[in-house]
Amino acid sequence: MIYQKVALIGLGLIAGSMAHAMREGGLAGRITGYARSQDTRDVAREIGLCEVCDSMAEAVADADLIVLAVPVGAMGPVMAEIAPHLAPGATVTDVGSVKQSVIDAVAPHIPEGVHFIPGHPLAGTEHSGPRSGFASLFRNRWWLLTPLPETDPAALDRLGRLVRGMGAKTDMMEAGHHDLVLAVTSHAPHLIAYTMVGVADHLRRVSGEEVIQYSAAGFRDFTRIAASDPTMWRDVFLHNKEATLDILGRFTEELFVLQRAIRMGDGQHLHDYFTRTRAIRRGIIEAGQDTEAPDFGRIAGASAAS
Amino acid sequence: MIYQKVALIGLGLIAGSMAHAMREGGLAGRITGYARSQDTRDVAREIGLCEVCDSMAEAVADADLIVLAVPVGAMGPVMAEIAPHLAPGATVTDVGSVKQSVIDAVAPHIPEGVHFIPGHPLAGTEHSGPRSGFASLFRNRWWLLTPLPETDPAALDRLGRLVRGMGAKTDMMEAGHHDLVLAVTSHAPHLIAYTMVGVADHLRRVSGEEVIQYSAAGFRDFTRIAASDPTMWRDVFLHNKEATLDILGRFTEELFVLQRAIRMGDGQHLHDYFTRTRAIRRGIIEAGQDTEAPDFGRIAGASAAS
Repeated sequence: MIYQKVALIGLGLIAGSMAHAMREGGLAGRITGYARSQDTRDVAREIGLCEVCDSMAEAVADADLIVLAVPVGAMGPVMAEIAPHLAPGATVTDVGSVKQSVIDAVAPHIPEGVHFIPGHPLAGTEHSGPRSGFASLFRNRWWLLTPLPETDPAALDRLGRLVRGMGAKTDMMEAGHHDLVLAVTSHAPHLIAYTMVGVADHLRRVSGEEVIQYSAAGFRDFTRIAASDPTMWRDVFLHNKEATLDILGRFTEELFVLQRAIRMGDGQHLHDYFTRTRAIRRGIIEAGQDTEAPDFGRIAGASAAS
Repeated sequence: MIYQKVALIGLGLIAGSMAHAMREGGLAGRITGYARSQDTRDVAREIGLCEVCDSMAEAVADADLIVLAVPVGAMGPVMAEIAPHLAPGATVTDVGSVKQSVIDAVAPHIPEGVHFIPGHPLAGTEHSGPRSGFASLFRNRWWLLTPLPETDPAALDRLGRLVRGMGAKTDMMEAGHHDLVLAVTSHAPHLIAYTMVGVADHLRRVSGEEVIQYSAAGFRDFTRIAASDPTMWRDVFLHNKEATLDILGRFTEELFVLQRAIRMGDGQHLHDYFTRTRAIRRGIIEAGQDTEAPDFGRIAGASAAS
């Protein structure tokens, strides 16, 4: 057991998966949880996700670890509300996809004697809500920690052990650097996928159901990430504005160069470009971050229950 | 058995999968094959993919079905070369991702008494070459046929039975319409994925291996489609130029509107947009074109052999 009592604020995909993983690994003595919506609390109770509380104060009382698992824009207000109820020596962490703006919003409310260690698990699915969590979500995935200069090494080490106990790999980086790396690997790709799905939606109104019917030809791979939680993603873009806009600017430039090559019939340029990108895919498989199975190991026509 | 002798011109992913699927289903008496590269022919022979011939003339002699499975830009020259060797009453089909330009290039070379029925299986993986094929590639996938007004109904019906025998679902459409629908569902998404991977590659040179290390956060889903065969895709873009540039133009407009919403902090606009795109994903799962399993049913950390 690494913590006596872990309090989960927010009961969506990440918190739910943490509850399952911590229970499976025997990592927490007790797990309490709170969600703003009565509906979410009811579902969480019904499926026995954790000890569901009807107030944040009750959930965090005497907890030695508090996990903020709410959309990035809600982190500050939540922290302000729980601050008076935290036990001395407790650790607060979060699972937000943006780090600098969470630090700016949360750190000022951290009481004397409470540790704050921002974090971000690079794991997710297109599903959300208390029923969507599962114990193996973090297995072999990265969980980035962006400690502050004043972070207590013992508290950091303890949180790292919890995270690795759930199957994740930990790495440390500075918050601003995190936000730039994630703008490339996650935030810009998500916005682009949302955009392409939006374009297809316009055309669907023109050409009936064909866009959906024939989606397996490539478009389908965009729709999974464009199906992620709208509130979470709205907050990500609003709170990692500079880095995301910077990457999108580079993306548009690059796209224009390729569009021009198509228009001019410059096959050599296209072929060279596509050969280079193929090598990157190889790197991702070698880094253990994807499977080499064709078509992601999808079973054609399967409708597996989640 | 639907055809006595099927000749595969080109021995990549699609032709290879056809060989496996036809053999499994007992759909062809004999299967011959030819590939321009000696290397490809050697590998195909070694794995017993089909009866590998050292000339196209030999492969197509007496065949009642000839499948052109080469990059779109090679279809016309290949057809010109095999034309004198075709048996009367034979059917020629192709598996190109673009249809109008293939018709323009191939149809003029079709001899009197030979049927030409253009086709396009909406199935693929990021792998290519003679080893990449497998029998179930087409299962539950669409195989679009774009017959010409003068196409013989009996020849069309026979080809349809072969395709469905390999597990695919057939649909008919006009070639120009096909090219527009595929620009949305496949060609534009591929170019966008190539672009995003290219942007990440630039940044990788700045920030080391982090882009690959942390790819599971969304970027990874772009890399699979950006790993597809460079020659095939070069030809697709050069031969479906108008429709692809039209869709990319719409995409850029749409992206600029979202970028502006981020810059202006218009959270409502973003949230509404993301809510709409989420519904489209639901439609794709309901249409049986993807699995609902979280993360595509990927097994974390697996490195399944392909």
